[in-house]
Amino acid sequence: MATLQAIKYNDGQLEILDQLLLPESCTFVPIWNVEDAWAAIREMKVRGAPAIAIVGCLSLAVELRKLAAPETKEELCRLVQEKLDYLVTSRPTAVNMHLAAEACVKLCTQLTDNTSVNVAEAKDDIVKHLEAMLANDIADNRAIGEHGASDIMKKNATKDKLRMMTHCNTGSLATAGYGTALGVIRSLHTASKLDQVYCTETRPYNQGSRLTAFELVYEKIPATLICDSMAAAAMKQFKIDAVIVGADRVAANGDTANKIGTYQLAVLAKSHDILFYVAAPFSSIDFQIPNGHSIPIEERPHSEMTHTGSIRTAAAGINCWNPGFDVTPAELITGGIITEKGVFKPDQLAPHQ
Amino acid sequence: MATLQAIKYNDGQLEILDQLLLPESCTFVPIWNVEDAWAAIREMKVRGAPAIAIVGCLSLAVELRKLAAPETKEELCRLVQEKLDYLVTSRPTAVNMHLAAEACVKLCTQLTDNTSVNVAEAKDDIVKHLEAMLANDIADNRAIGEHGASDIMKKNATKDKLRMMTHCNTGSLATAGYGTALGVIRSLHTASKLDQVYCTETRPYNQGSRLTAFELVYEKIPATLICDSMAAAAMKQFKIDAVIVGADRVAANGDTANKIGTYQLAVLAKSHDILFYVAAPFSSIDFQIPNGHSIPIEERPHSEMTHTGSIRTAAAGINCWNPGFDVTPAELITGGIITEKGVFKPDQLAPHQ
Repeated sequence: MATLQAIKYNDGQLEILDQLLLPESCTFVPIWNVEDAWAAIREMKVRGAPAIAIVGCLSLAVELRKLAAPETKEELCRLVQEKLDYLVTSRPTAVNMHLAAEACVKLCTQLTDNTSVNVAEAKDDIVKHLEAMLANDIADNRAIGEHGASDIMKKNATKDKLRMMTHCNTGSLATAGYGTALGVIRSLHTASKLDQVYCTETRPYNQGSRLTAFELVYEKIPATLICDSMAAAAMKQFKIDAVIVGADRVAANGDTANKIGTYQLAVLAKSHDILFYVAAPFSSIDFQIPNGHSIPIEERPHSEMTHTGSIRTAAAGINCWNPGFDVTPAELITGGIITEKGVFKPDQLAPHQ
Repeated sequence: MATLQAIKYNDGQLEILDQLLLPESCTFVPIWNVEDAWAAIREMKVRGAPAIAIVGCLSLAVELRKLAAPETKEELCRLVQEKLDYLVTSRPTAVNMHLAAEACVKLCTQLTDNTSVNVAEAKDDIVKHLEAMLANDIADNRAIGEHGASDIMKKNATKDKLRMMTHCNTGSLATAGYGTALGVIRSLHTASKLDQVYCTETRPYNQGSRLTAFELVYEKIPATLICDSMAAAAMKQFKIDAVIVGADRVAANGDTANKIGTYQLAVLAKSHDILFYVAAPFSSIDFQIPNGHSIPIEERPHSEMTHTGSIRTAAAGINCWNPGFDVTPAELITGGIITEKGVFKPDQLAPHQ
């Protein structure tokens, strides 16, 4: 069984798995242009910071491939920049789309300045750059998977098969494919070293039960769903070997912002003498931020907690607290931070590894 | 605002709040006989071990009041026992209904043996005994509330107002009224010592968001709903002063079985230097059981985790683990075990306090 592919791209044809229909239905929708991508991102048909950037950029590649080359490189670059500016507005907090847009604009400037490149060649170069993002992200994720799996196997050398726990969705549905934390679990499974992965529901938006569980069932990876409240009981009863999560942003000292609930899994892992790992692309490490205190935490709508679809699940009038993320202090990341460049202890992070 | 009354009984008239309709609607349904009570318990219109026993016994009182006294006390007692045996089958795991039935049968035997009591008087005595359960349970709960609040205030004497955290539902909707852990929070509020109570959703059955939140809104107690995954982040951010939960069963050494998620709250409380209390009637302490290892843990249907009403919230085919309870080791109950007889350290429990 191949890895679930939620973003399919071939020769200027882009299709994405509509995550809004999961887990009821597994339906792919075509993306013909940047407007389609913008709407799909805004409506959360696609989510996860890397996936958002890749779908946005690929939708631009789709358009550019169909476009007759403009008269001048300046005109081409103006057009590309306009479309990127528009894509960035789809979900302003997703930093990856910003970064991807910046990188593409930088390339436009270089191409414009390079007098040996004509407008048609410039257009081709931009398309190639955008199309490469998909393969690059998957390659990075596979490297994360390999580094992570080998580190975890090394630290559990006496064990035949391992029991892992993960939180939220960090798989094919959040990245270009394969995944970060879930990529490590995929690699363990491929190496026949995975006994079972316990995935949390990840309330209130249920990324664990809807998305991670979907990927695990799809790929026949041995998995058990637990409620977020069952993590400690599961750690104790099933003798979990390691907990692995993704990251939205890692500070220079290793403090890690990730989906709400991550911090408490790290505390519980420590109490149960279980290794705790973070898996993320190296680009998620923000060396501008000294520690987790400076990471802003988004508060999300109360309706996520009070309703499931149209069904009210909480008493009317109750006040809610719904932070989207929390910060796990570096000292609780006892396993390490797994990147495509290797596994680092939080205090070993440096900009140029 | 009076305390929410979920079980209303007056002169042979019994009505209960239909908890299945919460939080959408606050509707009382009449209970005319033991069959009505059996169905209401089985369908979970009423839940919580003390509440089940009280509704069962009061439904028998309703029937007995309307009944012409049988010819003999033996006949009366046979009838009472049959109806009690039937009530016990409504939810076989609820030990309180068993205990209540045993106590009532014992009274029947005493009355039969007592030659100075005629059959009409015996019937009245049984009715009085059954009717007294409601008031007795509320009185016990109020005592738990007072003991608990005064202990918590004493241990936080320098603080003007306290921030509490609780789990599941231990209030008027689980008991005859007032509640155990939630009763302590009510008492703190009445004493103007409550700043805020944070209540967990309590997945998968949402007793926190549906029931506890309903009670707190109803009585205008300052409260905030959190997801189970947010407990540690809330403890840290809001500087919680104490966590208080109920108990399904307490072993002789103080190990406590309670709603799944309790154990992890206790671990998190310890990590954050927060006092952790259990509040329960003294009758919940089972001195026959030396420690928590002997307490059986019920596994509940997976559909509780995979669906909300008719909405699927988890991927089809995913395996689930859905234990109803977990066991919190005595050493994590740092605040103490609050009963109607006072507050005890786990190692101070003894059958005759």
